[in-house]
Amino acid sequence: MKTNTLSVEQLHKMDAYWRAANYLSVGQIFLCDNPLLKRPLTITDIKKMLLGHWGTTPGQNFIYAHLNRVIKKYDLDMIYVAGPGHGGPAVVGNTYLEGTYSEVYPDISQDEAGLQKLFLQFSFPGGIPSHASPECPGSIHEGGELGYSLSHSFGAVFDNPDLIVACVVGDGEAETGPLATAWHSNKFLDAATDGAVLPILHLNGYKISNPTILARIEHEELEQLLRGYGWMPIFVEGYDPTLMHEVMATALDTAVEQIKKIQHDARALGDLTRPRWPMIVLKSPKGWTGPKVVDGLQIEGTFRAHQVPLHPHKHPEHLKLLEDWMKSYRPEELFDKQGRLKTELAELVPLGCRRMGANPHANGGILLRDLRMPDFRDYAVSVPEPGAPGIGDTHVLGPFLRDIAKLNDEQRNFRVFGPDETLSNGLEALFDVTERQWDAATLPNDECLAPSGRVMEMLSEHQCEGWLEGYLLTGRHGLFNCYEAFIHIIDSMFNQHAKWLKVTAHIPWRRKIASLNYLLASHVWRQDHNGFTHQDPGFIDHVVNKKAEVVRVYFPPDANCLLSVMDHCLRSRHYVNVVVAGKHPAPQWLSMDEAVKHCTEGIGIWQWASNDQAVSPDVVMACCGDVPTLEILAAVSIMREHLPELKIRVVNIVDLMKLQPPSEHPHGLSDMDFDELFTKDKPVIFAYHAYPWLIHRLTYRRINHNNFHVRGYKEEGTITTPFDMTVLNDLDRFHLVMDAIDRLPQTGDKGMDLKQQLKDKLIEHKQYIDKNGQDMPEIRNWRWSAGRAADNSRDMRQILTEQRVGLSSQDAK
Amino acid sequence: MKTNTLSVEQLHKMDAYWRAANYLSVGQIFLCDNPLLKRPLTITDIKKMLLGHWGTTPGQNFIYAHLNRVIKKYDLDMIYVAGPGHGGPAVVGNTYLEGTYSEVYPDISQDEAGLQKLFLQFSFPGGIPSHASPECPGSIHEGGELGYSLSHSFGAVFDNPDLIVACVVGDGEAETGPLATAWHSNKFLDAATDGAVLPILHLNGYKISNPTILARIEHEELEQLLRGYGWMPIFVEGYDPTLMHEVMATALDTAVEQIKKIQHDARALGDLTRPRWPMIVLKSPKGWTGPKVVDGLQIEGTFRAHQVPLHPHKHPEHLKLLEDWMKSYRPEELFDKQGRLKTELAELVPLGCRRMGANPHANGGILLRDLRMPDFRDYAVSVPEPGAPGIGDTHVLGPFLRDIAKLNDEQRNFRVFGPDETLSNGLEALFDVTERQWDAATLPNDECLAPSGRVMEMLSEHQCEGWLEGYLLTGRHGLFNCYEAFIHIIDSMFNQHAKWLKVTAHIPWRRKIASLNYLLASHVWRQDHNGFTHQDPGFIDHVVNKKAEVVRVYFPPDANCLLSVMDHCLRSRHYVNVVVAGKHPAPQWLSMDEAVKHCTEGIGIWQWASNDQAVSPDVVMACCGDVPTLEILAAVSIMREHLPELKIRVVNIVDLMKLQPPSEHPHGLSDMDFDELFTKDKPVIFAYHAYPWLIHRLTYRRINHNNFHVRGYKEEGTITTPFDMTVLNDLDRFHLVMDAIDRLPQTGDKGMDLKQQLKDKLIEHKQYIDKNGQDMPEIRNWRWSAGRAADNSRDMRQILTEQRVGLSSQDAK
Repeated sequence: MKTNTLSVEQLHKMDAYWRAANYLSVGQIFLCDNPLLKRPLTITDIKKMLLGHWGTTPGQNFIYAHLNRVIKKYDLDMIYVAGPGHGGPAVVGNTYLEGTYSEVYPDISQDEAGLQKLFLQFSFPGGIPSHASPECPGSIHEGGELGYSLSHSFGAVFDNPDLIVACVVGDGEAETGPLATAWHSNKFLDAATDGAVLPILHLNGYKISNPTILARIEHEELEQLLRGYGWMPIFVEGYDPTLMHEVMATALDTAVEQIKKIQHDARALGDLTRPRWPMIVLKSPKGWTGPKVVDGLQIEGTFRAHQVPLHPHKHPEHLKLLEDWMKSYRPEELFDKQGRLKTELAELVPLGCRRMGANPHANGGILLRDLRMPDFRDYAVSVPEPGAPGIGDTHVLGPFLRDIAKLNDEQRNFRVFGPDETLSNGLEALFDVTERQWDAATLPNDECLAPSGRVMEMLSEHQCEGWLEGYLLTGRHGLFNCYEAFIHIIDSMFNQHAKWLKVTAHIPWRRKIASLNYLLASHVWRQDHNGFTHQDPGFIDHVVNKKAEVVRVYFPPDANCLLSVMDHCLRSRHYVNVVVAGKHPAPQWLSMDEAVKHCTEGIGIWQWASNDQAVSPDVVMACCGDVPTLEILAAVSIMREHLPELKIRVVNIVDLMKLQPPSEHPHGLSDMDFDELFTKDKPVIFAYHAYPWLIHRLTYRRINHNNFHVRGYKEEGTITTPFDMTVLNDLDRFHLVMDAIDRLPQTGDKGMDLKQQLKDKLIEHKQYIDKNGQDMPEIRNWRWSAGRAADNSRDMRQILTEQRVGLSSQDAK
Repeated sequence: MKTNTLSVEQLHKMDAYWRAANYLSVGQIFLCDNPLLKRPLTITDIKKMLLGHWGTTPGQNFIYAHLNRVIKKYDLDMIYVAGPGHGGPAVVGNTYLEGTYSEVYPDISQDEAGLQKLFLQFSFPGGIPSHASPECPGSIHEGGELGYSLSHSFGAVFDNPDLIVACVVGDGEAETGPLATAWHSNKFLDAATDGAVLPILHLNGYKISNPTILARIEHEELEQLLRGYGWMPIFVEGYDPTLMHEVMATALDTAVEQIKKIQHDARALGDLTRPRWPMIVLKSPKGWTGPKVVDGLQIEGTFRAHQVPLHPHKHPEHLKLLEDWMKSYRPEELFDKQGRLKTELAELVPLGCRRMGANPHANGGILLRDLRMPDFRDYAVSVPEPGAPGIGDTHVLGPFLRDIAKLNDEQRNFRVFGPDETLSNGLEALFDVTERQWDAATLPNDECLAPSGRVMEMLSEHQCEGWLEGYLLTGRHGLFNCYEAFIHIIDSMFNQHAKWLKVTAHIPWRRKIASLNYLLASHVWRQDHNGFTHQDPGFIDHVVNKKAEVVRVYFPPDANCLLSVMDHCLRSRHYVNVVVAGKHPAPQWLSMDEAVKHCTEGIGIWQWASNDQAVSPDVVMACCGDVPTLEILAAVSIMREHLPELKIRVVNIVDLMKLQPPSEHPHGLSDMDFDELFTKDKPVIFAYHAYPWLIHRLTYRRINHNNFHVRGYKEEGTITTPFDMTVLNDLDRFHLVMDAIDRLPQTGDKGMDLKQQLKDKLIEHKQYIDKNGQDMPEIRNWRWSAGRAADNSRDMRQILTEQRVGLSSQDAK
């Protein structure tokens, strides 16, 4: 490829700019003083702890400089995603050179004093990390954990038709699963309404101490692989900077022009055939321009260039090597006496918001607009009395989401993500107004597919999460609906996003973004048909390990509560909200007014189910989650029928964080309020959706904690009936009543009799399902009816008084 | 491709066998009675709940029948991995036809009565799941969660040179990240010493309600993709069974012969060039041979064939469709009157252990041999006194692992897996005797690479985990070494493996396998240079959610303990062992004899650090983890110097599960033993490696729980010094002393003075690191010395008595 994309002058300037960036990178890794090398380098100029990664840096500097050129040439709206780990020196150095760094951190000024601070702060206590961390302007992707650069990039360009994300993919990162499947995102990109991702696969050749796979397969194989992924690769390969500048410039011009042609064809000509988007493969030596040989070992172009290639404190002779290395960039040609980048080089930088560090898409909160929201109350289900049959809570939520999609169709800032589960999770109403975005081939029997749509489905939780994160980070809104068990697939991605939220919340120039909302609708209790592998509610435990300021967990017990909770979540900012809800037909408990009140409080006594009005309760029956709520109410119903004199209080928890002390979570109930609900000394039978120990963890500081008896999922499950799932885990109504009786010795013989009846019931249940393969009619058809309590005519108080004499013998049983 | 691989008779028999398997599949999904259709089908023959997945089944039946043929023809040692979800009816039906099912479940006999039970049990309470679950003979891969079939398959064939794993990859599954990168496993397979994986990509076309990506790209693109992944794809595409049988048979013969040629070239001719292994792409209609059109909608060949295509209970007219469908397989030609597969078809099945359901590799415990283990005591570090400097605990472990690798070189049944972290985690000694297995290209500066080796490194935690699981499931041993934060990447894979262990432990014919051992050596406290993204100790919380019978968590505080713990883990069976250890130079506490005793007990008082001998302690200083142990001992050292009259007990915990009640975990201490260690009423200052709330969760039922004050990681971190990491999380020695003082009012003014000194120390620390970028010399050079306590001459008891008068005013502070 022999072209003249760059004039000789341009080439020299580009090279000088690159040298400046490389110089700053080396300075960040090594120096605490003497930033312009105005005097000979001494050992006191060198940081005592040398932390940083040189290997990836010169390649990224090269790319960044060249992207600046095409941004200016084509007036591109572009941001930069640094996939390779530890590229901090590159992104920090480049945003410093372009001026954005000093704009957000005026103390890191564009002069010698600023340079010294820039160098010192890198990988230094109180300073900045070695990644493209939140502190770095222009970053939406820290890259501390590898694998998500492409997914984030695609998320960023959905509904941003003018945006191009230049996504540098490390060849180490490319070995991860999430990255390996992210290449397929191009089948979900609409050339007309979305922007473009320009992947730049950086074949740096090595990981920490191993070669990379993609650098060690045949050129032909790599090309086939990338073409097989649907891309049109342009190879830029070499070592000599002068030659490489020209090849890279030509490649980038070609790529940008191809992107523009694809977009023009789609937008002006209506060409809907799936394009083969261009990408670049940059094969350059690891640690390019760095030390060639140190202590007799080759460094440049080997894995040994990965981290810090020189150690002047340990090897004094390295000091000279470092000085020579830094001087090889000829800093005196790059910076003026005050330490400012020379004007003719500064002119290479794009202007204002076109600078990648200043692009508002990379600080999405700036662009974030409120969703247009319909009134969720309009989607209420009628609940004439508690226990009215429902169609499945998520099926009620569907129309609300549908209308959000519709109302924001023009804003194009709301999407629903999931691995092929929009239908199976009961959100079919969405397809009344939109489709799944699908840009690969279609066939006659397909349903709900279109080149552009609000629903994104790929059978990769990693992609769904990564796309959504990229979408949110660039200032939009969304929802991830997923099977509860398989949301663990993205545990680690959640970690990284929660950490990003925590850190960015405290960076003044970063604006808050929309919350990341999870809807876990196919949950542990209704995987009776999928079996044990699909039964795991542990994501909640995982989430609550993160900082209280960024995590929220909700268990709406019915459809009206789900509407209220989801309305709240979609309006919230900078949280991770986990919402667990059912999709199967289930009883409804609260009218919309009641639901709003209950969800606003997050926790409360259900008076209509309780009979402790005006007196102190004998027992608190608490529930959190739709199935636990059903079982608790069924248990209360049994207790009120058979033990009518017991004073029972029913407490329902929507907002799990209410249980924690206010010192641990901003939603936490005060001790006084907690005691008011749960009493200080009465038994609490607590039916909980997930692993029971979390309730103990959240409440162990409460006065009444020792009286809490929690039932939840204890890792028992298989293919069986819905009710049997609760039986296997002792969460069913019968066990709950027995648990209460065990803690209420005053129920005496009557309690014992009832226990025996319930044990018989459990045997009857097992026999019935073994024979019939479904739950007994009395379970399937059960309806809440507190009225039945009235049937019992004998005065229970009297019975209790009579029996109190015999209590101690009962105790011993 | 026009060949005559199959004679007409063979073809007819193959087709009949396939029809038999399809018939059994439909029977399993629908019928509870009338298994041979000896009388007209009635609604009472149909299960009330219809659960199952027809879509993937006929394709898998087709593959299984054809694999049987090549197993016989070439006398292959082959197992079957069912990647697509919900393929239960296929694997169960086929193992039933080949006789293995009835061998392990005699009650499911090969006659009409057995057939009826076979049908009834499927997806039925008390029956079997819809996946290739542990209950199914021949399965090492349940496939409930998608994405790991290829990794498991490769794990199975490492060091099994005669084994071929036929791995059916679903095109839904192929969209997951782990599967997308697993194709690259062929760069880590040695044709000479490992077996072969034959991937069969099943282009079924659809997921739940979406098309699949790989079925909707151009044929040319798909071929490029697979060739780019390094495979040689053979396409089998069509609809007409007669044609398809011939094409499939030819393709399989070709594939098997290519595999044999590759192995011959490597083994006999020493050809080490990376081969292009064959694979098959089977493109067949989803729900092949099932109902074509139901209720006016096309079923076969569309997503609508995914689950149960007919619903006779809801739509009585479906009953006839079902009967027609089942009869289309002409059962009377397939089964004799007694319901047994006809002899001429049964003869198609391989013999004995060649049957895929009976292959011992799929019940790895049968083949499991003990590791040859050197005596771990021989690797002991000398600890002349507690606090002797160490070189980094994993660096001590390295030689032990090295010699295990060496001793078992002949058995070839031990491997170490990790994402490029063997060196960075301090296990460099392994490379004295083995290499990283790497079968892609090499270059002159590479180190520690060879076509065959005991170390497996790919930058994908998913691959490391999947490979190791496959290796263990087929009866070998191994270790996964990983950064602690990034082990979360495989949270969900751990879940599935733990579930597999739990279920298989209770299946009598399944033998126990070696434990899955995690070594988390780059842990949260020493990510000071990598920053916040690398700091997450939550995997432990995740692990302890699983059944106590399968999980174990260890925190060896020093090198000798690490040796002892790892020896135990590598000898154990059917657990998941998590071992957290340090790699940085750190003090050593116990001689080998002491370490063995301590690790055997799992928890104990460190008398040499305590001064409560013969009296009851004033405070218990507990520690769990290497860094917490260091900080607790440093705190104790301060307390013994400055508050010498305090009676301090130091308790160290190696085995985290000791803290739980014995009712919750088999390792749990009795309450009596627990109280003996932690007292019933004294303050316990507990320094813990991970999130502190886990300690509360594990101990909340203990009498003294309310006096537990736990410090651990509370999600605070950044780039900083090692000691500052502990300060950020209040786990440092100074905070720990202050915590103790706060709970020991008897320390009075002296305690208050010390607190003030320590607060000043913390300020001094911050100033020092801000200036110097490293910890103060007194921190870096700190050495344990209980002797200093002797310096303090005044009788503390007396001071305490004097001050007791003023205690209440101190309390109010």
